[in-house]
Amino acid sequence: MASLADIGVSALINILGAFAFLLAFALLRIQPINDRVYFPKWYISGKRTSPRNWGGVVGKFVNLNLKTYLTFLNWMPQALKMSESEIISHAGLDSAVFLRIYILGLKIFGPIAIAALLLLIPVNVSDGTLFFLRRDLVVSEIDKLSISNVRPKSYKFFVHISMEYLFTFWVCYMLYKEYDRVASMRLNFLASQGRRAEQFTVLVRNVPHVSGRSISDSVETFFQKNHPDRYLCHQAVYDANKFAKLVRKRNRLQNWLDYNQLKFERHPDKRPTRKRGFLGLWGERVDSIDYYKEQIKDLDKTLTMERQKILKDSKSVTPAAFVSFNSRWGAAVCAQTQQSKNPTLWLTSWAPEPHDVYWKNLAIPFVSLSIRKLVISLSVFALVFFYMIPIAFVQSLANLEGLEKVAPFLRPLIEWSFVKSFLQGFLPGLALKIFLYVLPKILMVMSKIEGHVAISQLERRTAAKYYYFMLVNVFLGSIVTGTAFQQLHAFVHQPPAQIPRNIGVSIPMKATFFITYIMVDGWAGIAGEILRLKPLVIFHLKNMFIVKTERDLEKAMDPGGVDFPETLPSLQLYFLLGIVYMVVTPILLPFILVFFAFAYFVYRHQVINVYNQQYESAAAFWPHVHGRIVASLLISQLLLMGLLSTKKAANSTPLLVVLPVLTLTFHKYCKNRFEPAFRKYPLEEAMLKDTQDRASESDVDLKSYLADAYLHPIFHSFEEVELVEVKVDKNQAHVPSSSPSELSSPSPQHTYHHEDDPSHIVQHYEVEPNHTMYHYEAQSPSNIYRYEYAAEQHYQYYHY
Amino acid sequence: MASLADIGVSALINILGAFAFLLAFALLRIQPINDRVYFPKWYISGKRTSPRNWGGVVGKFVNLNLKTYLTFLNWMPQALKMSESEIISHAGLDSAVFLRIYILGLKIFGPIAIAALLLLIPVNVSDGTLFFLRRDLVVSEIDKLSISNVRPKSYKFFVHISMEYLFTFWVCYMLYKEYDRVASMRLNFLASQGRRAEQFTVLVRNVPHVSGRSISDSVETFFQKNHPDRYLCHQAVYDANKFAKLVRKRNRLQNWLDYNQLKFERHPDKRPTRKRGFLGLWGERVDSIDYYKEQIKDLDKTLTMERQKILKDSKSVTPAAFVSFNSRWGAAVCAQTQQSKNPTLWLTSWAPEPHDVYWKNLAIPFVSLSIRKLVISLSVFALVFFYMIPIAFVQSLANLEGLEKVAPFLRPLIEWSFVKSFLQGFLPGLALKIFLYVLPKILMVMSKIEGHVAISQLERRTAAKYYYFMLVNVFLGSIVTGTAFQQLHAFVHQPPAQIPRNIGVSIPMKATFFITYIMVDGWAGIAGEILRLKPLVIFHLKNMFIVKTERDLEKAMDPGGVDFPETLPSLQLYFLLGIVYMVVTPILLPFILVFFAFAYFVYRHQVINVYNQQYESAAAFWPHVHGRIVASLLISQLLLMGLLSTKKAANSTPLLVVLPVLTLTFHKYCKNRFEPAFRKYPLEEAMLKDTQDRASESDVDLKSYLADAYLHPIFHSFEEVELVEVKVDKNQAHVPSSSPSELSSPSPQHTYHHEDDPSHIVQHYEVEPNHTMYHYEAQSPSNIYRYEYAAEQHYQYYHY
Repeated sequence: MASLADIGVSALINILGAFAFLLAFALLRIQPINDRVYFPKWYISGKRTSPRNWGGVVGKFVNLNLKTYLTFLNWMPQALKMSESEIISHAGLDSAVFLRIYILGLKIFGPIAIAALLLLIPVNVSDGTLFFLRRDLVVSEIDKLSISNVRPKSYKFFVHISMEYLFTFWVCYMLYKEYDRVASMRLNFLASQGRRAEQFTVLVRNVPHVSGRSISDSVETFFQKNHPDRYLCHQAVYDANKFAKLVRKRNRLQNWLDYNQLKFERHPDKRPTRKRGFLGLWGERVDSIDYYKEQIKDLDKTLTMERQKILKDSKSVTPAAFVSFNSRWGAAVCAQTQQSKNPTLWLTSWAPEPHDVYWKNLAIPFVSLSIRKLVISLSVFALVFFYMIPIAFVQSLANLEGLEKVAPFLRPLIEWSFVKSFLQGFLPGLALKIFLYVLPKILMVMSKIEGHVAISQLERRTAAKYYYFMLVNVFLGSIVTGTAFQQLHAFVHQPPAQIPRNIGVSIPMKATFFITYIMVDGWAGIAGEILRLKPLVIFHLKNMFIVKTERDLEKAMDPGGVDFPETLPSLQLYFLLGIVYMVVTPILLPFILVFFAFAYFVYRHQVINVYNQQYESAAAFWPHVHGRIVASLLISQLLLMGLLSTKKAANSTPLLVVLPVLTLTFHKYCKNRFEPAFRKYPLEEAMLKDTQDRASESDVDLKSYLADAYLHPIFHSFEEVELVEVKVDKNQAHVPSSSPSELSSPSPQHTYHHEDDPSHIVQHYEVEPNHTMYHYEAQSPSNIYRYEYAAEQHYQYYHY
Repeated sequence: MASLADIGVSALINILGAFAFLLAFALLRIQPINDRVYFPKWYISGKRTSPRNWGGVVGKFVNLNLKTYLTFLNWMPQALKMSESEIISHAGLDSAVFLRIYILGLKIFGPIAIAALLLLIPVNVSDGTLFFLRRDLVVSEIDKLSISNVRPKSYKFFVHISMEYLFTFWVCYMLYKEYDRVASMRLNFLASQGRRAEQFTVLVRNVPHVSGRSISDSVETFFQKNHPDRYLCHQAVYDANKFAKLVRKRNRLQNWLDYNQLKFERHPDKRPTRKRGFLGLWGERVDSIDYYKEQIKDLDKTLTMERQKILKDSKSVTPAAFVSFNSRWGAAVCAQTQQSKNPTLWLTSWAPEPHDVYWKNLAIPFVSLSIRKLVISLSVFALVFFYMIPIAFVQSLANLEGLEKVAPFLRPLIEWSFVKSFLQGFLPGLALKIFLYVLPKILMVMSKIEGHVAISQLERRTAAKYYYFMLVNVFLGSIVTGTAFQQLHAFVHQPPAQIPRNIGVSIPMKATFFITYIMVDGWAGIAGEILRLKPLVIFHLKNMFIVKTERDLEKAMDPGGVDFPETLPSLQLYFLLGIVYMVVTPILLPFILVFFAFAYFVYRHQVINVYNQQYESAAAFWPHVHGRIVASLLISQLLLMGLLSTKKAANSTPLLVVLPVLTLTFHKYCKNRFEPAFRKYPLEEAMLKDTQDRASESDVDLKSYLADAYLHPIFHSFEEVELVEVKVDKNQAHVPSSSPSELSSPSPQHTYHHEDDPSHIVQHYEVEPNHTMYHYEAQSPSNIYRYEYAAEQHYQYYHY
């Protein structure tokens, strides 16, 4: 049990650690060589193409401007400069709302901390049970500031209960305001968006197989019949795993070709060569450029054939389709209604953003979905409560005896006492560490098996699973001793009334542990986040060994988005800690406040400079955040009840019973009031936007705009990009714009209609290979790379 | 503990009792005087207008045809003659599906009973633990046939577990087939219906108040904007409680007028007179017919003024409306989608049948609804678990000392020992009896407060509440000793794993009790149902004292519908008993089978001859029935696990854990697969019907057809019916048809448009009062009465 002084020392260490990280960050970020690690967002959005240069060869890598070193903390005010609306347009609504969660934490816990410190701590200190007891071994000094210090049966518990009421109302009030704000932000964001494919499109799953009729036909007939005047067109979903493989191979070859061409450009005197055999290790030596060109040409033929096969063969069409309507109203109606007598057929839902689609799961039939959900729920339950069993098994295998058996030659080394003790301390922990490291990935795989069709949805479901894991294994696991499995056993075999008591009693005792946790995981962890040590190292390693072309550089730079599946659950854990301890041990609150403030700065900086969100879900995660904060309130109330009942406060405890009921009612009200804004699209809105559209631009060819929007991303591959560019070249009509929105969405210029004539691309390609090549070389490389980058991103979505 | 012989005696007594009831029924039903009690449905449907007559004055009241006495059980084959489709057209889908529940019981428990009796009983008997113990006081002979007879740790429990699996699969299979059948019956029924107002109409609630604009205006603008080309018209909902009171008063007066006119017709020599004062007890003596005519005329003026006031005053319009569309498709779309940004405004749902609307609840705002639901949930919980507290309180008041204090003059009587002992035995029970008698009414009031807008919905919610009460207080209450409150206390303070054990252990011991319960409540109770003793007595009492006119007679005859709020829960209790005991004490199953078979006969007879369903919900109660049978399966599995764990069958019990998970998955699958058929209206269906309609009758004036369909029923009062008849008289176009469907639904000839000119009815009435009157007397009375009956029914709906 730590004394106040211990806590102070720990805080100092962590603050120093955090400062060290910040200092390192401040120094590293102004080095030009690291520019792509710390400011990738600006490269991606096209506002920066090369690092700031301070002159000279050395200046390319190291910052020589000494003035900038003096202002090394200026990223903080810089991060605050951007307004919220600017952040929304710069990084999307998801990121903006994500930042609001931290502000919400400050808004909730700021006043609570002040009230609790001013009111509750004097009340707790004044009673002095623990001073009186003087059992220093059991009781820490922190406990003297907590509710543990109040005498049993004391009337002072009325203060705690009324504070719990007050704080609950405050939290609910702030939550209500925030939900209201976020919901209207979402609706405004959706309303402010221009024409987007997903507004007109509905995803239809479980299209029934009618013998002698293709899926495409069925869809066409069905929607023309049941949504006449509104149905516009549809896009079939192809099962294209083999094609995707070939495309990946072609990308690799193209990359090698680019590399060799660049090499040749730089040294025109020497044509690069390679060997024909496996990995270029043996065989006849040939000209590399010719070799790759030839290989690509061969592969392109295979690709074209494979593509034709997919497009023509009705078996490769999965029973799902993206159906587009000629108005938002029509799509809103179709997405929200039941189509067929059999409610497991013709299931409609809003189409995710084209980037957000997780293609592999589109074809899962209804029955399979139910079974998958069941299996995954059971697995998650098992994972949360029994994950220690396989790890203990692995640990028992990975001991020294086992190691000696497997690798007898290591025996002398292992027998060396220093190594032995090190391994004995290290090995068992390793399995656990590895497990915790891969846990988010495991959970993501589980979510994928569950069959969600959007990446954003997958991330939300993963976040939920991770939260359950944290709740049971970090929160409860730290409070109650024993593994989660033992806890589960105890829960089943204890009276329900006993459980909150048992946990409630240990709550104040664990305050010092959680304070340390907040400092290590929260403060130092966040400082580590801004340093981006891992991406920094990986980027430089890749730059040294793998990066051959500009395209590789872009790939190595890719910062990813905010890691919602891990960040949201830990954020919610901090809310839980704050809410549980706000009445019990209020001294914990300042630590949480520091975390929220610091994390806000850091993530604001990261959102502005680093992250590049892959999809835009328009804050679809908010209802989950809200729900889990409300759940935290309930947990807090239950535990306080348990705690008070052990304090024999029989006359005051029943007063608390009303609070969970009120909290649940609040939650239900919010759910009814706001959640539809996150699940449905009101017809009023749809109609308004339709009318505006019709008034402003009446002669838009919506059909051609939507025709390709939901084409499987692998069909948007090289050739088409080139084709487009070729066309652009010829017509001189469009210049590929460099705004990020067009790049990251399949642009409407892709006028190639696969259904009409899948062969014409072949002709195109065979007729003008040199022209294409010429064009390819003539264009400014960065532009092409950008296109390729967009294409690349598509593959990533597909393989996500 | 009863022996087998005791059970046999009890069975004999109950069978004899049931036969006595049946005999009485058989005798009473063929008496002409009782014809309206036992065959009201035929009167209501117009297929019978007077009892069969066996000649003479006596023959009017008593059946003199001796031959009919010999065939007194022939109602049973008669009841079976009607096919299901005939029942649907005769009594509606609700009744037909209600009968199917009994057949489902037979289908489920028939094979299970055979398998259990042939397999499980030999297994149970062979082990003979209880024979060996010979503790006759504790163990009954029934127990020797039950699972209690199997030795602890026996491997024979594997037989029980595999039977539980087998039976669960069988029940699920039957449930699945039945759900499938009922869902398709429902869809066919809805598809086969002709044009009905509710197919085109959507109920909109929470219309926002916009200052300076009437509700009607808002609705019109909103739907014209957001559902153009589809919106047709709407009907405002009026707050008309005062008007309803006046209408009731007018009905009473009209009834007296009819009575006096009939009296005068029969004795034309003597005009009836009455006194002017209160209740005709004093004051000046006047001519009755003139007096009532004058009174009615005065009241009509007040009525007209009140009506005008309601129709003109915007304050009497509640923020709800029935919005009609020009196609089923349009209505289906509007009912299933979210209309406005704020999801608590413009809430749309399918309009209930016009008869099914519970008008008083239409105006409840959204926030109030949430609070009401919360309050009622808490009240139901309190009622289920703590209902004994107020009853015990009343009982403590209603003892003899209390009685003596209140009524000292009774002292000599009370002191008489016989009376004293009788009262002491009787009084405490009385409070409980009264409570149980009024319980369904209390639950109905609760459901009304909850704010449901349809009578069918109110009945379903009441049934759910009643089921919880029965489950806790009849099922659990009989198994576990102590009041529900004590049980609740025990549940909270016991480990969750202990609860199924405690209950499971007592389960086999209570088998004899439940067998007796089935015989008393099930067999004899059902025989009592067919005898209709209460309606019989009340009908004859009313006939003697109250009935003045034919209209009164119809009112006295009104049989009501199947009492779903009480019948469904007790039916579900029998399913629960059968499912819980199928493995534990299979000897109980034959008793349940007898109940289902017998009840099927009785209710089939009643549905055909007696009941007159007030509304048609198209089997909307089915998902609840299904859900509760699945819940019974879960309860059975849990209790069997508890029971086996006390039998130390540690090696076999874990096998059962999978079963609840499978059962829940089955339930979830069924819910997804079938429930939408009961909640939503698929667009495919709507479009199909629309197309058919347009093809068959293109020039129908839908607007005038829908204009009055959802007019508050009190506005369909006398005058209009008369007006219609007057119009009919003048035009000689339509003759009021006598088919029940037209009578019970506001017929499309009601062309009076209140919104256009609320005053024209006044003129009509004042210009032609005598003509109306003349017409009134000239028409065949039965026809008029039928109209009045329809109107009367409306008031009943309103005051339900």
